Amino acid sequence: MSTDFFTLHKETLEQGVAAAAERGFWSAYPESPSPRIYGETANDDGRAAFEAYLGKPFPLDVQGTDGQVGNEQSPFGAELGITYPHVPVEALIAQSSAALDTWREAGPEGWVGVSLEILKRLNQRSFEMAYAVQHTTGQGFVMAFQAGSPQAQDRGLEAVVYAWQEMARIPHSVSWVKPQGKQDPISMQKHFTIVPRGVALVIGCSTFPTWNGYPGFFASLATGNTVIVKPHPNAILPLAITVKIAREVLSEAGHDPNVVQLAAHAANDDTVKSLALDPAVKLIDFTGSSANGNWLETNARQAQVYTEKAGVNQVIIDSVEDMKAVARNLAFSFALYSGQMCTAPQNVYVPRGGIQTADGHLGFDEVAAAIGQAVEKLTSDAAKAVEITGAIQSEAIAKRIEQARALGLPVVADSRKLEHPQFSNATVMTPLVLRADVDNPAIFREWFGPIVFVVATDSTEQSIRVAQQSVQTHGALTLSAYSTDENVKHAIQKAAERAGVSLSLNLTGGVFINQTAAFSDFHGTGANPAANAALSDSAYVANRFRVVQTRWHA
Amino acid sequence: MSTDFFTLHKETLEQGVAAAAERGFWSAYPESPSPRIYGETANDDGRAAFEAYLGKPFPLDVQGTDGQVGNEQSPFGAELGITYPHVPVEALIAQSSAALDTWREAGPEGWVGVSLEILKRLNQRSFEMAYAVQHTTGQGFVMAFQAGSPQAQDRGLEAVVYAWQEMARIPHSVSWVKPQGKQDPISMQKHFTIVPRGVALVIGCSTFPTWNGYPGFFASLATGNTVIVKPHPNAILPLAITVKIAREVLSEAGHDPNVVQLAAHAANDDTVKSLALDPAVKLIDFTGSSANGNWLETNARQAQVYTEKAGVNQVIIDSVEDMKAVARNLAFSFALYSGQMCTAPQNVYVPRGGIQTADGHLGFDEVAAAIGQAVEKLTSDAAKAVEITGAIQSEAIAKRIEQARALGLPVVADSRKLEHPQFSNATVMTPLVLRADVDNPAIFREWFGPIVFVVATDSTEQSIRVAQQSVQTHGALTLSAYSTDENVKHAIQKAAERAGVSLSLNLTGGVFINQTAAFSDFHGTGANPAANAALSDSAYVANRFRVVQTRWHA
Repeated sequence: MSTDFFTLHKETLEQGVAAAAERGFWSAYPESPSPRIYGETANDDGRAAFEAYLGKPFPLDVQGTDGQVGNEQSPFGAELGITYPHVPVEALIAQSSAALDTWREAGPEGWVGVSLEILKRLNQRSFEMAYAVQHTTGQGFVMAFQAGSPQAQDRGLEAVVYAWQEMARIPHSVSWVKPQGKQDPISMQKHFTIVPRGVALVIGCSTFPTWNGYPGFFASLATGNTVIVKPHPNAILPLAITVKIAREVLSEAGHDPNVVQLAAHAANDDTVKSLALDPAVKLIDFTGSSANGNWLETNARQAQVYTEKAGVNQVIIDSVEDMKAVARNLAFSFALYSGQMCTAPQNVYVPRGGIQTADGHLGFDEVAAAIGQAVEKLTSDAAKAVEITGAIQSEAIAKRIEQARALGLPVVADSRKLEHPQFSNATVMTPLVLRADVDNPAIFREWFGPIVFVVATDSTEQSIRVAQQSVQTHGALTLSAYSTDENVKHAIQKAAERAGVSLSLNLTGGVFINQTAAFSDFHGTGANPAANAALSDSAYVANRFRVVQTRWHA
Repeated sequence: MSTDFFTLHKETLEQGVAAAAERGFWSAYPESPSPRIYGETANDDGRAAFEAYLGKPFPLDVQGTDGQVGNEQSPFGAELGITYPHVPVEALIAQSSAALDTWREAGPEGWVGVSLEILKRLNQRSFEMAYAVQHTTGQGFVMAFQAGSPQAQDRGLEAVVYAWQEMARIPHSVSWVKPQGKQDPISMQKHFTIVPRGVALVIGCSTFPTWNGYPGFFASLATGNTVIVKPHPNAILPLAITVKIAREVLSEAGHDPNVVQLAAHAANDDTVKSLALDPAVKLIDFTGSSANGNWLETNARQAQVYTEKAGVNQVIIDSVEDMKAVARNLAFSFALYSGQMCTAPQNVYVPRGGIQTADGHLGFDEVAAAIGQAVEKLTSDAAKAVEITGAIQSEAIAKRIEQARALGLPVVADSRKLEHPQFSNATVMTPLVLRADVDNPAIFREWFGPIVFVVATDSTEQSIRVAQQSVQTHGALTLSAYSTDENVKHAIQKAAERAGVSLSLNLTGGVFINQTAAFSDFHGTGANPAANAALSDSAYVANRFRVVQTRWHA
């Protein structure tokens, strides 16, 4: 059965392998929530499926439960009222270890086939998932659809493709014939078996439970490991649906559904710690705070730990063609999902003497004003703006805007509360843009949320130096720069390479620094403190399995 | 210049890539010390080159020295009397970091080209290196030649091949064109740069300084890192020659020779600790004791740490065709380099009720006796035996034989001191073979050296269970088994896969459990406590570099 899934999806896999080699545009799952693609009733069906979950126990048939847990609140206002089966850590580990014993025998084609079928079914449920993502993360619907469904699926597929590539290069069985001069050669037969590492743990985040969760989930599953998915207590539903689909596919293929389990738990209990330190857990994928990520790296020594943590993303403005186009692009990046993205820019470095543009010189204040005006303009129509900003995901982020304002820095654009036309209880805030000086240590902390500093530097040279140092010290997932000068662009590229951060140059159109495309853009580099891995590359998958060989005289 | 080296050796590289995919027999460097291959005068020239080093400062032209260090003693008796420049850790790190700034710009073809030229020159100096390896490790000459020169070079080449494969799959520059329905597509240009991790540290061992040192050395060098080579104080010369050749090639190619440096140091000073914990050091390759390897893994948190540590290698005897052939093969494995190999077998499990052979049943005592006789026979002619055993490498190993004898276990074959016909001061010892019961905890410690236990078990079933548990708990690099029963072979293979250890079945001819062939056999699995990596695979190289991308509107 599982091999059938492999054959069924082999063409997708091969296209993915080609795309990963070429790194041009390729996507397996259409990002447009169009009825022409997903079907005329897809949206209604998806919403109905989502609404059917509300106020009830989530329908997940599992063993070893000792009760129900769950207290999710939509950032758009409503309480979801969904509870999930709670399985104690010992039972999760025991069931995962038991499932490993048979799952390992399915082999690479079995693991990859099941993974690809799960992705296909997730894609069919993209609208249902979009509502689940929207009402746990606070993303606007279109973003919840795109980032939460097809783009997350593409990142999952990418991980499967890389895993397959690495496993497929190990031959199953070979003859080894060593010449011995005039004597008969020595002939050995050798057999190579791909073996999983063990139980994998995926620790989900509250802002992008699927997009950030799928790469690790599929990388571990496709290499023969069993997976325990531990969602953030505020964003359980998207991963619960994912686990449910995975278990259905596993059962249909004749495997133990406990290959994939959900570890729903109450906030602030010790589930993460107990799971992460269990000797059976050999792989951990984590997205979240630097404190928690560093704790895992330091303490979960029995496991390979892949982390994406916090950082300070930066923009260097040296010189531009059209300041308005630059400001429009930046304003969108600040506002998109209220800056609640690990890729959102925070510090914008501008020489205090101003910059050159195609229309002449612009002073620092004029540059800052252009940025402020673009933010105001983008958010002036609340009904349109809320679709970009979504809702503030947590109380902590709303408070952080207050704390930033309390720094007492000059305000370039103040954060305003917007009325959401559809969800009156949603907290919607426009970006807060402050002016800061480069020697202000406050700007080198991560201010996760819609908080931006336009930073006065002595020169572009200093902007580059400060940006490089900050990446090396505090980490960053993105660096953006604007310059019309080839030498400056070259210097910035060299600084980015030395600091180990992806660089986007002169973005003014429909591409934003926040976004990366699977199969083309790496997300993270693994070369600075913000993340110890990149999505996705060989390093991300190659150590999730090992090879055991058996040899004998032929 | 460096690109010339790449072109020069491209065919070798391509052959290596093909060999790594096929995993059949392939070797770039002939293992036979034949004058027909290496030249009529190669042996004499090599010996003369080795002897020219004796009693003098080693001719290495380096910066930042504060004196000379070195106190190597040949296990065959003579004091080498060679001293090496001592460079303090701070100077090594500063010079390595400075060299990194230009070396990184050479790019994959530059790094790989230099690496391949170094390997070629090492091969030309194979005899000189063989004498250096012989008189630091105590290996017999032929073994020192084969394992120390061509086979070590093959393992180095293998690491370069894997590094190249992983780097070559990243395109240099691509167009990304995303369709936008009826509107113009979005077009981005993307550039990908391979960036090194930083300064790499290679920690050499005293028994196989080149064979165990080259994989990490070349894996790090070929991925753009600068390398500090820290030899074991008892085996500096082989790595000093390597470093000297590397620096010559680097200089000829126009690079800073400090890309490769030697960290010769006195025994028991704090050089390793200072180097390993330096923030600039991002990669560490280590071969040695479990205590030191585990210390590195725990404490050198700023670095990727690749370790090969200690383990307990095992043999399961269930049933055999010809006990004499089995015993001959095992005796050679015990005696080869006096068991001073991380791959040498230690525990031989035999059911106490005896085993089936083609000639009928053999009792436990008869099996043990056959093994003992084979050892006696192999070592009866001292002149021949010393070429297999070499010399005891250190006082600690000689003492360990005493400690094993003091366990008071029944002696199957006693360890005898042999007279070396050529080196009267060499300590040469035949293997000590003891009989033990499976419940004796002493046998689950590593007894590094020529010490073997023939272990009585209740059944083959117990032998398999005990072997699997021991690998999982104590680690192992090899597992060997003898059975004529397909079901038993299958059960042993499954146990090996679950424990994560390479398995050799029914070795009776000219292949020994101690030996692995580059490009075909993985050395270690990375799946049990004996080693966290395998030589060589993608996982061994993929995280030694990272990718930084730059994108802009096309």
